[in-house]
Amino acid sequence: MKKINVGVIGTGRIGKLHLENLSVSIPSAEVLAVADIFLEGAEEMAEKFGVKTVTRDYKEILSDKDVEAVVICSPTDTHAQYTIEAAEAGKHIFCEKPLDLSLDKIREVLDVIEKTGVKLMMGFNRRFDPNYAKVQQMVRDGKIGEPHILTITSRDPSPPPAEYIAVSGGMFLDMTIHDFDMARFVVGSEVSEVYAKTNVLVDQVFKEAGDVDTAVTVLHFENGAIGSIDNSRKAVYGYDQRLEVFGSEGMVKIDNNTHDTHTLFNKEGSQGSLPLDFFMDRYLESYAIEMEAFIDSLINDNDVPVPGMDGLISVAIGLAAKKSARENRPVKLNEIL
Amino acid sequence: MKKINVGVIGTGRIGKLHLENLSVSIPSAEVLAVADIFLEGAEEMAEKFGVKTVTRDYKEILSDKDVEAVVICSPTDTHAQYTIEAAEAGKHIFCEKPLDLSLDKIREVLDVIEKTGVKLMMGFNRRFDPNYAKVQQMVRDGKIGEPHILTITSRDPSPPPAEYIAVSGGMFLDMTIHDFDMARFVVGSEVSEVYAKTNVLVDQVFKEAGDVDTAVTVLHFENGAIGSIDNSRKAVYGYDQRLEVFGSEGMVKIDNNTHDTHTLFNKEGSQGSLPLDFFMDRYLESYAIEMEAFIDSLINDNDVPVPGMDGLISVAIGLAAKKSARENRPVKLNEIL
Amino acid sequence: MKKINVGVIGTGRIGKLHLENLSVSIPSAEVLAVADIFLEGAEEMAEKFGVKTVTRDYKEILSDKDVEAVVICSPTDTHAQYTIEAAEAGKHIFCEKPLDLSLDKIREVLDVIEKTGVKLMMGFNRRFDPNYAKVQQMVRDGKIGEPHILTITSRDPSPPPAEYIAVSGGMFLDMTIHDFDMARFVVGSEVSEVYAKTNVLVDQVFKEAGDVDTAVTVLHFENGAIGSIDNSRKAVYGYDQRLEVFGSEGMVKIDNNTHDTHTLFNKEGSQGSLPLDFFMDRYLESYAIEMEAFIDSLINDNDVPVPGMDGLISVAIGLAAKKSARENRPVKLNEIL
Amino acid sequence: MKKINVGVIGTGRIGKLHLENLSVSIPSAEVLAVADIFLEGAEEMAEKFGVKTVTRDYKEILSDKDVEAVVICSPTDTHAQYTIEAAEAGKHIFCEKPLDLSLDKIREVLDVIEKTGVKLMMGFNRRFDPNYAKVQQMVRDGKIGEPHILTITSRDPSPPPAEYIAVSGGMFLDMTIHDFDMARFVVGSEVSEVYAKTNVLVDQVFKEAGDVDTAVTVLHFENGAIGSIDNSRKAVYGYDQRLEVFGSEGMVKIDNNTHDTHTLFNKEGSQGSLPLDFFMDRYLESYAIEMEAFIDSLINDNDVPVPGMDGLISVAIGLAAKKSARENRPVKLNEIL
Repeated sequence: MKKINVGVIGTGRIGKLHLENLSVSIPSAEVLAVADIFLEGAEEMAEKFGVKTVTRDYKEILSDKDVEAVVICSPTDTHAQYTIEAAEAGKHIFCEKPLDLSLDKIREVLDVIEKTGVKLMMGFNRRFDPNYAKVQQMVRDGKIGEPHILTITSRDPSPPPAEYIAVSGGMFLDMTIHDFDMARFVVGSEVSEVYAKTNVLVDQVFKEAGDVDTAVTVLHFENGAIGSIDNSRKAVYGYDQRLEVFGSEGMVKIDNNTHDTHTLFNKEGSQGSLPLDFFMDRYLESYAIEMEAFIDSLINDNDVPVPGMDGLISVAIGLAAKKSARENRPVKLNEIL
Repeated sequence: MKKINVGVIGTGRIGKLHLENLSVSIPSAEVLAVADIFLEGAEEMAEKFGVKTVTRDYKEILSDKDVEAVVICSPTDTHAQYTIEAAEAGKHIFCEKPLDLSLDKIREVLDVIEKTGVKLMMGFNRRFDPNYAKVQQMVRDGKIGEPHILTITSRDPSPPPAEYIAVSGGMFLDMTIHDFDMARFVVGSEVSEVYAKTNVLVDQVFKEAGDVDTAVTVLHFENGAIGSIDNSRKAVYGYDQRLEVFGSEGMVKIDNNTHDTHTLFNKEGSQGSLPLDFFMDRYLESYAIEMEAFIDSLINDNDVPVPGMDGLISVAIGLAAKKSARENRPVKLNEIL
Repeated sequence: MKKINVGVIGTGRIGKLHLENLSVSIPSAEVLAVADIFLEGAEEMAEKFGVKTVTRDYKEILSDKDVEAVVICSPTDTHAQYTIEAAEAGKHIFCEKPLDLSLDKIREVLDVIEKTGVKLMMGFNRRFDPNYAKVQQMVRDGKIGEPHILTITSRDPSPPPAEYIAVSGGMFLDMTIHDFDMARFVVGSEVSEVYAKTNVLVDQVFKEAGDVDTAVTVLHFENGAIGSIDNSRKAVYGYDQRLEVFGSEGMVKIDNNTHDTHTLFNKEGSQGSLPLDFFMDRYLESYAIEMEAFIDSLINDNDVPVPGMDGLISVAIGLAAKKSARENRPVKLNEIL
Repeated sequence: MKKINVGVIGTGRIGKLHLENLSVSIPSAEVLAVADIFLEGAEEMAEKFGVKTVTRDYKEILSDKDVEAVVICSPTDTHAQYTIEAAEAGKHIFCEKPLDLSLDKIREVLDVIEKTGVKLMMGFNRRFDPNYAKVQQMVRDGKIGEPHILTITSRDPSPPPAEYIAVSGGMFLDMTIHDFDMARFVVGSEVSEVYAKTNVLVDQVFKEAGDVDTAVTVLHFENGAIGSIDNSRKAVYGYDQRLEVFGSEGMVKIDNNTHDTHTLFNKEGSQGSLPLDFFMDRYLESYAIEMEAFIDSLINDNDVPVPGMDGLISVAIGLAAKKSARENRPVKLNEIL
């Protein structure tokens, strides 16, 4: 069996998860090396999953002739540089989103990818979640006819720490960016205009950071469909992740994944389980499927399912939403791109 | 037992329903007279429910000393005039919505109501539907804390006839007006700004009438909450009527009412029942409760639960939405009022 | 339009409901007379629904030449006698269940029915409930293939008064009898053997009356299917009425009808509505459809949908269940019939 | 951190799963050796999870001084012998169910366990499934008051191969045994009497093997509760695993786990996802939690959560059910034990 030799850069929370999936669940991948500036954590992981090379310096991985692909899970502000260097070293790349918060920087990266001819896949894992994948497939298969209305509910269980908020790029680029990608994915058409209405209702820490915590965003798609996304940074009942596409021949929606399926009936009413409240629990399966899709596209030399351009467009929609909220007017995407 | 003597003006579809509720379900109401220019239908109803007086001319009802209240179910363009005449005749009034499509006309009616001191209740029946009433009560009781986000899904099963569309006032004043009223009702705050994105995706007949059939409308409330309403004139799977309010301490939502509660599981999947597909089936119970509330407020000399001002504001929001869609920009309500 | 002239005997809770349905919802029925030994209640009803004749004596109805059909809603111990007399007077009969608690007595009634040639319909209203009717139709249409397993959950919201228990005939003849009828109806095959395991877990008042309050009953059907019914006299969360049929090609089930469709999500979990808690709320619609079916079969001179024999068999299954519980062994139905 | 050194005997389907869980998910376990008569499969697993010793002969594991505990996943007819030998070698034991199909043999094993003082845990994995565990916890916490009625639906997606049926011990010992264990677990009381009604409705292959494929089993518990289990060997819509406990203060139930959470609404109705259709998908999580519980009880020297006696009782209930079905009468458990 052909195997792809992989290096993992960054062994934080998400890096560990990719490492485990590559090591345990994907027989056609072999992790040769891991890198992290916090060497100890990387060493622990390496031992657990039988990875031979551990290093503080990602460049060691890039210069390792045997490594064919890298998985970049380091902090956001390193994504663009590492991706460019990896591409120039001839490695295929899986990179966590976003590539960067600047469109110019992203374009620079995409130029390098194009020149070097390596594959670049963006880590929009939710596309591989069985729920979202099912909706997309049903829409694509015409089960609801022509899509007319999209509604996305996307609410975090609790706000991130203040220091994170400060460098996050704002709710649209940090949180809604997933919904923007999902919107394009399930509707199957590009966004042409964005209108965002925002507020700070959850915590004044967002205001202090020049950010917001509550938003409703309207998307206009090139095929005429209209979308609505509602976001909050704090849903006390868990991680609320739902989506619905309405069309000429029907409607398909997905509900949250819950802790369990119990319902209790007593004098007070019926009580059920809540949505899962941590994104890694909720989307656990999607990460495994996503990584398998990346490795498969390398094995079979196919196009990756989420190319770098998807990263560019999501950031552009996020920037349009920010501008719309600030100026309280609809913003056309070509004002941004 | 004290009884209120009622006259019903208009015995079309909705008039019949009010007549039946008044006659059969509300012991404290007595229908003395019905009027309709189509006398035959009125006579049939009168016989069925033991109403003594039947007439072509609503003025006969207004001049009947024994009649204390009238229920106006005649065509929309007669609402304002009949309401004014009834008020001047000293009758309490239940009037189907809208009072009129012109804010000036509505204001004129409200002035007469104020001068004459009669009670005027608007027929926003959905407020009395057990589902919506439950949500409103829960929000009011603080079950979800402060409301942050409202989402309403409101989709008709099929478009009305072209001749109806022509005189309907457009989707916002004909269909979404219910959702505007509901939005204010459940959020418990006034709308300050409206943004509407619309399209014609269902049927070109709407375009020809200068109307739309698909819309997403964003509402900004004075308390800071943000709302989103999505509308379509054609949901092939039935009358899709859902609502959700999200707040600082939780979220409450209501689902559709279905034909039955069955689920079939076979090789193909699980199949369940569809939403009811006719508004009178869906909202049947609400009409009875609404009329009982009207009669109760007369019996006990209380304020009516849906005064004329609610009719004015809903039309104003509708006009703002129309303007917003036309000019593709958010419109503040005080541009309209 | 042809109309059936009807007399209603007994204007208690269920009699009032039938009277209202006949008067308001069924244009092809005309109620000519009502009888009740409590004359006052009957008079009130007669006035409300425009019934001309009111009497203490049901025999007046039976001797009224214009009356074509009677609806018997008097106490259980009068059913057999009134039915016999009505048949001998040439009236068609709708009779509330059970005809009697003695198989011999029921057979005597059925003999008279046969001789006189009138129609007799038993008031097994649940067959006309949209949920149960849907299941039966789906099973009959082969949607689940051959039925293999039936499960019925049937739990009352609270025990009846002690004086009622004393004369009820016991749980199997008073409460489970509905489930026995439903079992035959949806499976489409006759019961050949019954095993019942019972207990007194809710209230010792049942023990004192020689009755039980909790039971699981196993039914064996002639077509090989096996059924299970669980009953309790007290479900604190409402009137729990569910059913499921499992077969070679699928499964169909129905859930409870609830007060409303709301779900509240907060830190504690998700909370929803409870089942309706009063049988007349839960089965309101079924009573109207049932009565319409009776009148229709008279108008069109068709067989009634629930003939007297259905009353006989349900009682027989109930007696078999009692015997089985007492002797703790399966009892074949031909030990009883 | 203290670690338990483990040997895994049998690397078939379930052995692999335990091996993966021990290696990847349970940091306090170290797998030292695996044994399987099919050496090749064992070697492949050993390499994947970094296990040093691989052998054809389980005795090598038993004689390895460093091995503290063994996980027995070999064929059923070896369970008793391996367990005895492992106990005599001083190893703690996790054994897949059943220990044996003969009560005498099981008693012999339990005697050895008692004498040697090692811990023995039975692999009733469903107790660790989040759904079932939640129900048990809620019942134990008194959320439904005193349990009165238990209903279990347990239907396999498709029959096993004929050769498997021949040696399975029959449906009650092969399939329902899980439900018997679950019944005792969630009700929290011992079964005193069993009545089983069975049939062959799915496939004549069961009849030829002297087995059945459809059953309804009634359990009587010492605390007075009554239970009902329905089983089928073939649910075309997937692996149907549901449970409900009804009590004096409420009811709790769990529903199936589905492939995804989508619902499609179109003209034909609403369509949703089916239950998972393979037991290892459905109960995947339970296996990991179960093994963690085993290792934890060794680390902390606590009682194992599912001791050998639970294995004995489940088999006894299964034998009582077989006898009941054969003799068509309720069988008391003390006729068997």
